[in-house]
Amino acid sequence: MQNAVILINAEKGQIKAVAERLAEVEGISEVYSTCGRYDLVAIARTTDFESLAELVTGRLMQVEGIRETETLNAMQVHSRHDLETMFSVGL
Amino acid sequence: MQNAVILINAEKGQIKAVAERLAEVEGISEVYSTCGRYDLVAIARTTDFESLAELVTGRLMQVEGIRETETLNAMQVHSRHDLETMFSVGL
Amino acid sequence: MQNAVILINAEKGQIKAVAERLAEVEGISEVYSTCGRYDLVAIARTTDFESLAELVTGRLMQVEGIRETETLNAMQVHSRHDLETMFSVGL
Amino acid sequence: MQNAVILINAEKGQIKAVAERLAEVEGISEVYSTCGRYDLVAIARTTDFESLAELVTGRLMQVEGIRETETLNAMQVHSRHDLETMFSVGL
Amino acid sequence: MQNAVILINAEKGQIKAVAERLAEVEGISEVYSTCGRYDLVAIARTTDFESLAELVTGRLMQVEGIRETETLNAMQVHSRHDLETMFSVGL
Amino acid sequence: MQNAVILINAEKGQIKAVAERLAEVEGISEVYSTCGRYDLVAIARTTDFESLAELVTGRLMQVEGIRETETLNAMQVHSRHDLETMFSVGL
Amino acid sequence: MQNAVILINAEKGQIKAVAERLAEVEGISEVYSTCGRYDLVAIARTTDFESLAELVTGRLMQVEGIRETETLNAMQVHSRHDLETMFSVGL
Amino acid sequence: MQNAVILINAEKGQIKAVAERLAEVEGISEVYSTCGRYDLVAIARTTDFESLAELVTGRLMQVEGIRETETLNAMQVHSRHDLETMFSVGL
Amino acid sequence: MQNAVILINAEKGQIKAVAERLAEVEGISEVYSTCGRYDLVAIARTTDFESLAELVTGRLMQVEGIRETETLNAMQVHSRHDLETMFSVGL
Amino acid sequence: MQNAVILINAEKGQIKAVAERLAEVEGISEVYSTCGRYDLVAIARTTDFESLAELVTGRLMQVEGIRETETLNAMQVHSRHDLETMFSVGL
Repeated sequence: MQNAVILINAEKGQIKAVAERLAEVEGISEVYSTCGRYDLVAIARTTDFESLAELVTGRLMQVEGIRETETLNAMQVHSRHDLETMFSVGL
Repeated sequence: MQNAVILINAEKGQIKAVAERLAEVEGISEVYSTCGRYDLVAIARTTDFESLAELVTGRLMQVEGIRETETLNAMQVHSRHDLETMFSVGL
Repeated sequence: MQNAVILINAEKGQIKAVAERLAEVEGISEVYSTCGRYDLVAIARTTDFESLAELVTGRLMQVEGIRETETLNAMQVHSRHDLETMFSVGL
Repeated sequence: MQNAVILINAEKGQIKAVAERLAEVEGISEVYSTCGRYDLVAIARTTDFESLAELVTGRLMQVEGIRETETLNAMQVHSRHDLETMFSVGL
Repeated sequence: MQNAVILINAEKGQIKAVAERLAEVEGISEVYSTCGRYDLVAIARTTDFESLAELVTGRLMQVEGIRETETLNAMQVHSRHDLETMFSVGL
Repeated sequence: MQNAVILINAEKGQIKAVAERLAEVEGISEVYSTCGRYDLVAIARTTDFESLAELVTGRLMQVEGIRETETLNAMQVHSRHDLETMFSVGL
Repeated sequence: MQNAVILINAEKGQIKAVAERLAEVEGISEVYSTCGRYDLVAIARTTDFESLAELVTGRLMQVEGIRETETLNAMQVHSRHDLETMFSVGL
Repeated sequence: MQNAVILINAEKGQIKAVAERLAEVEGISEVYSTCGRYDLVAIARTTDFESLAELVTGRLMQVEGIRETETLNAMQVHSRHDLETMFSVGL
Repeated sequence: MQNAVILINAEKGQIKAVAERLAEVEGISEVYSTCGRYDLVAIARTTDFESLAELVTGRLMQVEGIRETETLNAMQVHSRHDLETMFSVGL
Repeated sequence: MQNAVILINAEKGQIKAVAERLAEVEGISEVYSTCGRYDLVAIARTTDFESLAELVTGRLMQVEGIRETETLNAMQVHSRHDLETMFSVGL
């Protein structure tokens, strides 16, 4: 499984709508609307790197209302949970 | 469930060690070592806000090798997964 | 009681109007127009975290004339005043 | 009454201790430990501008463990609460 | 006497006009057009804090051609000159 | 007369001492300890550009406790006061 | 051979199109669409400095959809590959 | 093939030495010493994503004299060259 | 002779045109189109400070296509060349 | 002739000494001590690109007292002066 953390700022007045649109995008497992420097944080979880690249350079770009994104691609994951099994249904 | 995304920069040469230490901390569900502006991203998941506050102002502060943290507290979560059930075992 | 400090920059020429609108919003206890890097600082005080989330992701977003906000969610409060009692009437 | 919002970053591992020390300082009415870009936000409330100046340039400077402060001096206050009466005991 | 240093960036092509307009504003004692990070620096000198607040949140906001201002409110003044007497005529 | 606005940040705990030292420096007419992004703002007023250059590259550099300075050299001055006469004694 | 690394941010929704346009430009050997602070990184490889200057100040400027570029001109190259021979066909 | 562009700032006086050390690291194909905001740019080319992750979180971290790195992971490559064949010998 | 280094960013697609326009301005001795953070660097050389002030606050402001300028006024010059004689013809 | 503009910040108290040392370095034609964001600006003028690379990655690095440098390499020069002839003696 390939993970990425996507930091997002939305167009004015669009935070909630963008969050809902993102949660529908294939490969996005969770979207948090957050306090602080970024409006939203999305977690992408895909089967492999190619799928992640397609998501980030393709489907993500077509979501309306996004002003800026910065993708933090995960090199390694450390967790006591078996994330791979837990999220495998939704991938 | 209360979630937070914690952006972390580690002391030089300490990224891997900090990631491993963080993954052991109660309330931290996953730690990603990431490309880009931040060294690590940790996801905190606790039963309520008080537990999150204790984690962020207490246990997190005692992890060695951290240089800077910025906590993005989640106000709302949008997901097709039932995160609450999925992560409830580890909370 | 859940507190948050909201740092705000207003649209040009809108500082005073935004301050007055914000002071009317349920859950905002005080609005300061300030010198320095931010035009306004609003203090939110709500009964619990869910109400704060509703305020920050909902009502705050509908106030006209706001250019940028950054919410600093309070994890803990230290005060010689009994803020909970003092502000309970207005919550 | 003269108010100011003081944004504070603490020395590493000193956030809690600084919060407690600040809460004891005459003229500081509340200290919030916050998520995001700043570790702590202190609210200063004094009877007049001279007292605020003494606090900010004097007593605040002597609190140990502070790394950086930025004071946002309030020019005007908008509130449905009578802050002046509420906080007058503690001034 | 209450002093403040106001750092200003003007709309494109408006530096000189803004400087002249500001110099006419009651409470602004001097305007410098400067090299470097800011286009203009205005020095405000008023009889008391309330007048300064009125100037900064009111009259200053109505000057055309200003893009951004940041007010540095003076807490204390150190000078071998008796600024209070020198500038008292113009206040 | 040649004017410059000097933005200064002091070493920790040195703001007051630096302000007092600066006020003694020949060519510095006023020093303000300020709220916000800078600790101190000094106004330099000299008879000509060469004297200003000597002050900024020489005497200013020898004042202890200064962490950072940024000099905003005035190209033009707009004022209803006759600053040249007012400050001529102290130059 | 003269090399340069060009950091690029594209207009919204234009990343893929800009990448494809850039890859066609004479003197651009590779274009990477990247995670993080920049949308694209292009590697320019030309026979000499004059050709690089023409590329960067001329042809690059005419590519549509670019928002910002920052060229990092290579002073020296360290590689176990013989880049000069490898890329000589394409120059 | 998996590519990444690594932006690097070196310890003072260490730029040349770091460049030479990096060029020896397995998976680093080229190192440019550059003008501008970054001292060095290294291009990593590995057979797959796992090898890249090992390089960036492991071997790169052990190179002495590095002050800061920021890895821009390539999602897609656009080139008229067959980079995969050209660099396959050195992988 | 009074010198200043002027850092310039141009409107999109206007770098070359702005460079040519600037080179015609009286008091601008050289214009470099540069790699990195700034598009252009102009060197101003005038007979005295007043002429420089007129150039920077007047003629420079009327050059079309400039987005941002930041003037670094020279306090002192160190050179093995006799710049004053070399550039005196063009002043 | 190859030109570069080098923006420099010096160690505390070292501005004048660094300026004098730099003016002695072969290939540096002028050093300005400047107001504003940078302490010093040096102009490098060499016969070709290789000499410039040697200067910037070699001799410049050995000058004591420098804290940070950022080299803006000139791609093109626009001037009514024949800089090549004027500076050819000193190259």
